[in-house]
Amino acid sequence: MIVYLNGAYLERARAAVSVDDRGFLFGDGVYEVTRAVNGQLFEWERHARRLARGLEGLGIQLSGGLERIGLPEISERLLDENGLGTGDATVYLQITRGAAERRHHFPPAGTPPTVFLGASRLAVPEAIRAQGAAAITTADLRWGRCDLKTVNLLPNVLAKEQAVAAGAFEAILVRDGVITEGASSNVLAVIGGVLRTHPLMPQILAGITREVVLELAAEVGVPVALEAIPQDGLARASEVMVTATTADVMPVVKIDGRPVADGQPGPVARRLHAALCTRMGRAAVRAPAGATGPARPV
Amino acid sequence: MIVYLNGAYLERARAAVSVDDRGFLFGDGVYEVTRAVNGQLFEWERHARRLARGLEGLGIQLSGGLERIGLPEISERLLDENGLGTGDATVYLQITRGAAERRHHFPPAGTPPTVFLGASRLAVPEAIRAQGAAAITTADLRWGRCDLKTVNLLPNVLAKEQAVAAGAFEAILVRDGVITEGASSNVLAVIGGVLRTHPLMPQILAGITREVVLELAAEVGVPVALEAIPQDGLARASEVMVTATTADVMPVVKIDGRPVADGQPGPVARRLHAALCTRMGRAAVRAPAGATGPARPV
Repeated sequence: MIVYLNGAYLERARAAVSVDDRGFLFGDGVYEVTRAVNGQLFEWERHARRLARGLEGLGIQLSGGLERIGLPEISERLLDENGLGTGDATVYLQITRGAAERRHHFPPAGTPPTVFLGASRLAVPEAIRAQGAAAITTADLRWGRCDLKTVNLLPNVLAKEQAVAAGAFEAILVRDGVITEGASSNVLAVIGGVLRTHPLMPQILAGITREVVLELAAEVGVPVALEAIPQDGLARASEVMVTATTADVMPVVKIDGRPVADGQPGPVARRLHAALCTRMGRAAVRAPAGATGPARPV
Repeated sequence: MIVYLNGAYLERARAAVSVDDRGFLFGDGVYEVTRAVNGQLFEWERHARRLARGLEGLGIQLSGGLERIGLPEISERLLDENGLGTGDATVYLQITRGAAERRHHFPPAGTPPTVFLGASRLAVPEAIRAQGAAAITTADLRWGRCDLKTVNLLPNVLAKEQAVAAGAFEAILVRDGVITEGASSNVLAVIGGVLRTHPLMPQILAGITREVVLELAAEVGVPVALEAIPQDGLARASEVMVTATTADVMPVVKIDGRPVADGQPGPVARRLHAALCTRMGRAAVRAPAGATGPARPV
């Protein structure tokens, strides 16, 4: 695989950053994972806007601005050169504050940020979607600026590992008695016929798939409420689902070992997933009858 | 400078980690900064214990155990080879969960952790100590496991940058109305003749200098209370100080632009600093009369 690093295209195995990179030393950077379908980036402009907000939030400045790098062009070239011009793929991009002598505060002005992009085949978790995913709940231990998509991801890593160790697909994070989001997804629930999810605030990442799905809900006539879901509200939900760039709309049918409603994927998740696939220009895979698969991350 | 990376000694400029290193992608690792005086590591055993606790907390396993790597021997060799066998230096060490295909949960068992060490000359901030440091207060936005010394340091970076932008040496972090610690230090205050600092809990890093200084306080007869300092208690303090591996005991004489007591370094900080220097086998630098210097990080 060919990746992009600071202006050069090179073999992934040769792509390395300095031990003085502030991404390595401080997690001092932001990232995006953009979906690609048949070589086309999905909702790139939204990713670009969120990236720009993140860089601004961290005070990382790119000489000549973000546009000058040509991130969508690099992404498309990586998809093309790596044989990802058809089917499902993702482009990972990360920008850190660059390499400099270690100290907590910012390095001298003019220190060039590190820019890394790589493309990968995405194995869309259709088998899990067909039967619905399992999730666990766990405490949301993250910091106070989860609205910034930074690589300070250790709490997410530990929560996700806890899920995987429990044989589950996702960890649903709970803070002050309400569901904030998932370890690497947003969480939505249908309660009393209304699709609910946490409103945007510093405790929440503005997921691109979440954003698109909320628009699609309005289009297909599903009522939406931007209200936090209380943890005990999960027991009253007729459906729970998570949204993520790598999972689209994923119905959650079991939480902490207890079934959600009847324990089957529900109609709202199915409709939203189909609408999302249409928007992506991608056929929704119909679940083969009796399809099974591991209810864990792939 | 020569550094150590995964078994090899090499020039710092050539030391690089994979873009797939989980330190770079997730901040998925722990670190230590150990003080060295005349080539001797100070309180290495305490650093080693804290490191082991951190690795356990993150679930990072080293094949054959931590001792097998020989971290103190590597540290001493780095001090020696880099001409740091005399005077003040630090050894930085970082261990991450290694390089693996990106996914939030842990990589396959057997993925070797990344082990990096580097030594640097320490310019002990004596000019700042002589006049006392300035600090600001800011919200503690960090995650729920600050007791683990991880490289998820972005909130610390942003707080420290805020301090530097304000011409200050340190940012004092405030959560729920009390002082937790500094962006890269612990905070202690003398209130009513008693040296107070936040007790150890998940919101606090167990600083090695803090630990040693609390022992020294008992030895030199300064009464100690492990009680959180309310933010408004700073106005009643006769002294405020921060402790850190790179700053020893640093009196804080100004907070948010207001003087602490009479705005001069106080006797408790001076006694504790002198005792710490004795313990380190290092002469305490006496402040030249009228010494001045920038009240910011060096």
